[in-house]
Amino acid sequence: LTRFTCVFCDEPRPADPRNPFCPDCREPMLVESEGQRKSTRRSSNPLSRFKDFLPVSRVQTDLCLGEGNTPLLSLPNISKRHGLPRILIKNEMLNPSGSFKDRGTVVAVHTAREMGIQRIGTVSTGNMGVSTAAYGSRAGISTFVLVKQDTPREKLISAGIHGARMIQVQGDYGELARLSYSIGKRHGIYFMNSTDPFRIEGYKVIGFEIFSQLRPHTPSAVFAPVSAGGHLIGLMKAYMELQQQGFVSQLPHFVGVQAQGCSPVAEAFAAGRPRVASSRTCRTIAQSISNPSPPGGNIVLRMIRELGGTLLAVGDEEILAAQGLLAREEGLFCLPASATVLAGLLKWRVEGGLSSREPVVLVLTGSGQKNLQAVDPAGLSLHTARLSELDELISGLTA
Amino acid sequence: LTRFTCVFCDEPRPADPRNPFCPDCREPMLVESEGQRKSTRRSSNPLSRFKDFLPVSRVQTDLCLGEGNTPLLSLPNISKRHGLPRILIKNEMLNPSGSFKDRGTVVAVHTAREMGIQRIGTVSTGNMGVSTAAYGSRAGISTFVLVKQDTPREKLISAGIHGARMIQVQGDYGELARLSYSIGKRHGIYFMNSTDPFRIEGYKVIGFEIFSQLRPHTPSAVFAPVSAGGHLIGLMKAYMELQQQGFVSQLPHFVGVQAQGCSPVAEAFAAGRPRVASSRTCRTIAQSISNPSPPGGNIVLRMIRELGGTLLAVGDEEILAAQGLLAREEGLFCLPASATVLAGLLKWRVEGGLSSREPVVLVLTGSGQKNLQAVDPAGLSLHTARLSELDELISGLTA
Repeated sequence: LTRFTCVFCDEPRPADPRNPFCPDCREPMLVESEGQRKSTRRSSNPLSRFKDFLPVSRVQTDLCLGEGNTPLLSLPNISKRHGLPRILIKNEMLNPSGSFKDRGTVVAVHTAREMGIQRIGTVSTGNMGVSTAAYGSRAGISTFVLVKQDTPREKLISAGIHGARMIQVQGDYGELARLSYSIGKRHGIYFMNSTDPFRIEGYKVIGFEIFSQLRPHTPSAVFAPVSAGGHLIGLMKAYMELQQQGFVSQLPHFVGVQAQGCSPVAEAFAAGRPRVASSRTCRTIAQSISNPSPPGGNIVLRMIRELGGTLLAVGDEEILAAQGLLAREEGLFCLPASATVLAGLLKWRVEGGLSSREPVVLVLTGSGQKNLQAVDPAGLSLHTARLSELDELISGLTA
Repeated sequence: LTRFTCVFCDEPRPADPRNPFCPDCREPMLVESEGQRKSTRRSSNPLSRFKDFLPVSRVQTDLCLGEGNTPLLSLPNISKRHGLPRILIKNEMLNPSGSFKDRGTVVAVHTAREMGIQRIGTVSTGNMGVSTAAYGSRAGISTFVLVKQDTPREKLISAGIHGARMIQVQGDYGELARLSYSIGKRHGIYFMNSTDPFRIEGYKVIGFEIFSQLRPHTPSAVFAPVSAGGHLIGLMKAYMELQQQGFVSQLPHFVGVQAQGCSPVAEAFAAGRPRVASSRTCRTIAQSISNPSPPGGNIVLRMIRELGGTLLAVGDEEILAAQGLLAREEGLFCLPASATVLAGLLKWRVEGGLSSREPVVLVLTGSGQKNLQAVDPAGLSLHTARLSELDELISGLTA
């Protein structure tokens, strides 16, 4: 039987996805890591491969969309140019709806099916809404996506095409996230938001795949962007469970990266504060991790400190430079929010963080296709010519 | 040693990627399928797995971006609702640059590296330019992408971000494609266009993966969109080589699908003509397969007839309906050009084409994210509310 526990209060409770907060301290709860012996299995479906580690009683392929099994790709050009050790990209852009969110959604939708829940929803400004809408349609479950008033039309289309009810809500976004749970209880909607405990269980599978792709090596460090916190919590929980089960002896150094324009968790870490304070203003090119009051912030802070990890903030210029490097040197076009991991690695190196020759893993979370506005066309090589002028233009460009 | 042959003239010649046309009949040449014994290997890299079947002397992982290993996904909801046999989607949207083009580009870039070619290029309106730019940057090869004058800014950004020289050319597109080869010869640029023989070798790997994922079954039919023709030629060539090598006894029924607004190959097929005539006007929602004079058209026509396959055309309404079905029922958001395969299957069923209970495979070639303009927002469930009105709105929507 699945139980939730609170990282702070440590009291296990029966798992109810519509009540994912600790009744004592109001922090998000996590799925309890039970101690019973686990093993990995042979399967092409990553949920089946790591089923022992997941709160899923039966993997249902009709709920899956081919998520996971993403490549772990080396960055030979950037490594060479910057004199870095082996860098590996875990390319989570190559999930069915284009982001790592699918990893969490597929587990949360399994939970909905197993519990007979007929309606699901999420509060999202982007990738999470698209992912929830896609898996909801696949499961034949009525889906509600609550978005900000000013959400661009393209994002409404990307999720709405799956038949989800898209509701643009006027008012404070943090308040909307809180309100979603009471609305969920009243209308029988399971809101699988950023720090949903089952969603976080799904993010663990990214960590499990890194483990099995690199085996017998353990990465010296794993970098992930931090927004609400769920993704990094899942990665850390995965490796903690692998260690508990004797699959790895050492944990990687976990590095959570935020954008300086909106870095409440990194600020609390740097200041040695026990709790995250909400950011007043948030302004950064890395929109999809621009979260002024991250619900999982306190858990991230606690876990990173316990594991001896790091939280960093990088500036928009560093982010755009890293996005450009990945695209120009390695053929990978990711969102600014994803590029924070490379910016973070370069900064950490300068600060003397890199100590081992074991590879460093950077998780790329979402495709740059989803935010073309972030790219400055001034940096591109754009030309025009008539057919008759083409030869001369190319002569000039190849000279 | 790799040789080219002409499907029509049958004379093998030394392979030179800058001279990919038959000197006798001017049709595109293909890489010769040699008869020597081939086997598959164990590897996580699909190029290595099927290396014996490919004109690649050594797979170079620094040229790869994690292409392939795409899921073969069932469509339980559509199958049930439409009383169809098992339909499987080969999801080629999950390639590094978001389309099947990467399969061909990676092999063509291997060729460039092996031959010491320092410059590559392509003539493209979309996905192929993005793919070539991505792999060119990874390989550290200077890349030229020639596009139409009216190419939307987003497409320029998606390819340009990789550092490719993007040239918008004013003038006839067909003429531009022809001109690219003479420019290529003059400036040492290998133009890996739609029917490049090495590109087509890469498309074979999609067929090889379908074969190994379905083994020991052979799909009763394989559906692919037809634009220039290279993709379907690659799929057919893959299965012909598998048969020649004794891996399969029977070939699937190959079905090429075009959009009615631009269907020169399907028209020639229906009319029993030996050659494809260029379309005067081309107007369809399926932009990425809107090709009035497909360079591989005559080869497709010849091969489809030899193998007893089918060419179909579907209308824009059928295409949009199929795109909506995939998104709403199965969580897959593809381009209209990709949705033609489901529209084609539904049409073919009505025409009595479906005869076997073996699964049918549809290849989805590109992500719907790349053309959000094609979606009619009128069909979506879009709502607005203040925070205080949200509960009431949801009451209404769940009633």
